[in-house]
Amino acid sequence: MSLAPDPIVIQEVALCDGLQIEPAWVPTEEKVRLADALSGFGFSRIELSSFVSPLAVPALRDAEEVFARVRRASGCIYVALVPNLRGAQRALAAGADELNLVMSSSDTHNRANMGMDAGTSFRAFAEIVPRALDSGVGLNGTVSTAFGCPFEGPQDEDRVLALVERYRALGVRGVTLADTTGMANPRQVEALVERVLSLVPAEDLTLHFHNTRGMGLANLLAAYEAGARRFDAALGGLGGCPFAPGASGNICTEDVVNMCHDMGLTTGLDLPGLIGLSRILPALLGHDTPGQVAKAGRACDLHPSPGTQALRRQRKA
Amino acid sequence: MSLAPDPIVIQEVALCDGLQIEPAWVPTEEKVRLADALSGFGFSRIELSSFVSPLAVPALRDAEEVFARVRRASGCIYVALVPNLRGAQRALAAGADELNLVMSSSDTHNRANMGMDAGTSFRAFAEIVPRALDSGVGLNGTVSTAFGCPFEGPQDEDRVLALVERYRALGVRGVTLADTTGMANPRQVEALVERVLSLVPAEDLTLHFHNTRGMGLANLLAAYEAGARRFDAALGGLGGCPFAPGASGNICTEDVVNMCHDMGLTTGLDLPGLIGLSRILPALLGHDTPGQVAKAGRACDLHPSPGTQALRRQRKA
Repeated sequence: MSLAPDPIVIQEVALCDGLQIEPAWVPTEEKVRLADALSGFGFSRIELSSFVSPLAVPALRDAEEVFARVRRASGCIYVALVPNLRGAQRALAAGADELNLVMSSSDTHNRANMGMDAGTSFRAFAEIVPRALDSGVGLNGTVSTAFGCPFEGPQDEDRVLALVERYRALGVRGVTLADTTGMANPRQVEALVERVLSLVPAEDLTLHFHNTRGMGLANLLAAYEAGARRFDAALGGLGGCPFAPGASGNICTEDVVNMCHDMGLTTGLDLPGLIGLSRILPALLGHDTPGQVAKAGRACDLHPSPGTQALRRQRKA
Repeated sequence: MSLAPDPIVIQEVALCDGLQIEPAWVPTEEKVRLADALSGFGFSRIELSSFVSPLAVPALRDAEEVFARVRRASGCIYVALVPNLRGAQRALAAGADELNLVMSSSDTHNRANMGMDAGTSFRAFAEIVPRALDSGVGLNGTVSTAFGCPFEGPQDEDRVLALVERYRALGVRGVTLADTTGMANPRQVEALVERVLSLVPAEDLTLHFHNTRGMGLANLLAAYEAGARRFDAALGGLGGCPFAPGASGNICTEDVVNMCHDMGLTTGLDLPGLIGLSRILPALLGHDTPGQVAKAGRACDLHPSPGTQALRRQRKA
């Protein structure tokens, strides 16, 4: 296991991929408060909202307002998720620092999710890229279902690599491989990350894992071992998959940060702050969240020994 | 990442470490039914109960009866957890195939859990070993809190290694390193497993992880990469830690098996059978369980594409 001291970069996606499936409306001011707290805890990248159809994803219908009201912390890139040209126009008008273009390796998933096939997605991206570059706005391209599609099953590695190259050829510098419904396993992650890192430098590659089948942090570890250094994660482990009711969502930010810090890796993030913020989520959303460290505390948060407790009871008595 | 095809051996501990903290009484016949279903799904090792004080752990007060009533599947070793001489006498009388001796690397934890220090534990073990060997009963020795104690914090690796050697010198062949309250991280696991495997062959070493801080499968992966092949796990992820209310318990058997199978590793276990069995646990215990695969299904369990669904609706209409 190589343990180079390269810092880990975590992009916080709770406000976008996390909130999009929440049934309860989270008021705009609460979203802005969360985003401002998150930037205060040291994030260099926050995926702030998604410029999709408000009918398709009503939970994020306030994307423009969230971008307008958030405090733009210096050193933090505020990313907008964008599925098509209309979304890109809205995101550019709203002042996003970076557009995250999204399409699926699986045509079946792309049609179900975006209403188009891969070719149609890339024709839209070809129109978006020059507009973003003209505006000085960064670009990232996500390959969803890169590790498996809930309809098609395993995805061909060569096809995923071809999509990565297609993004790069268009001028999209950052690339995200997304395990959209949590189907990846560590062996597969290692193999695909190694191949993609032969095309794309580590600073341009992000891994997006879900913990749907409990393997989220194991997949992150495998990706790290294969050379990846940038990961998406959501506070509290928000998010989820419509095909896995009750299962976990995105890998949980504070659980990832806790593992990294325990392993001696740096993230630049304030873990106690994140844990405190995560603990307000159940009240905000009306349900428990999957994150573990917000419940268990850090391993370094010790408990008084039973002897001490007995002594305390004695002192009180 | 080395991916040798050695099979993974999973010891099922739901009936012992899993049930011990359950507030609801699980009737003996339900325990026996679970154990018999588990052996039918291919386990070669089941930790069936714990011969501790019935006052300390009332949930397992029927240990003798469970051993008497379980169907002894051929090829399956039925293990009894044993903290002291009295427990060993009961376990031998009950017909256990193997005694799992338990003590903690942390004296503070050993005193809190067992009411004695390490030296007292080993004096008892020295009396137990010849009796077990005379009866042809196997022996395993667990070092609890080997990766951290909730009272003392980090544990000295040299001390853990010395306890492993002390077990082996007594004639205890199998050794388990237990992350009793889920404090381990992958880097630490890799380091300790590598050192212990210089003393003990892989077939005699078991790793016992909890998912308290979400790192359970990442720790298993790190241990596997370091050469470990034997792991404890509990159906549904039962178990838990009194210091982490709401957090996960033992690593979840079906989640472990699912990860292993997806990685191409063999376990000899019937995963669909395990998933089905795990799904009865919430009704039996009166609460949700932490396992993910029982909720999400396997990655290979595909969903009909939305097109097919639309077609089906059309056909019905």
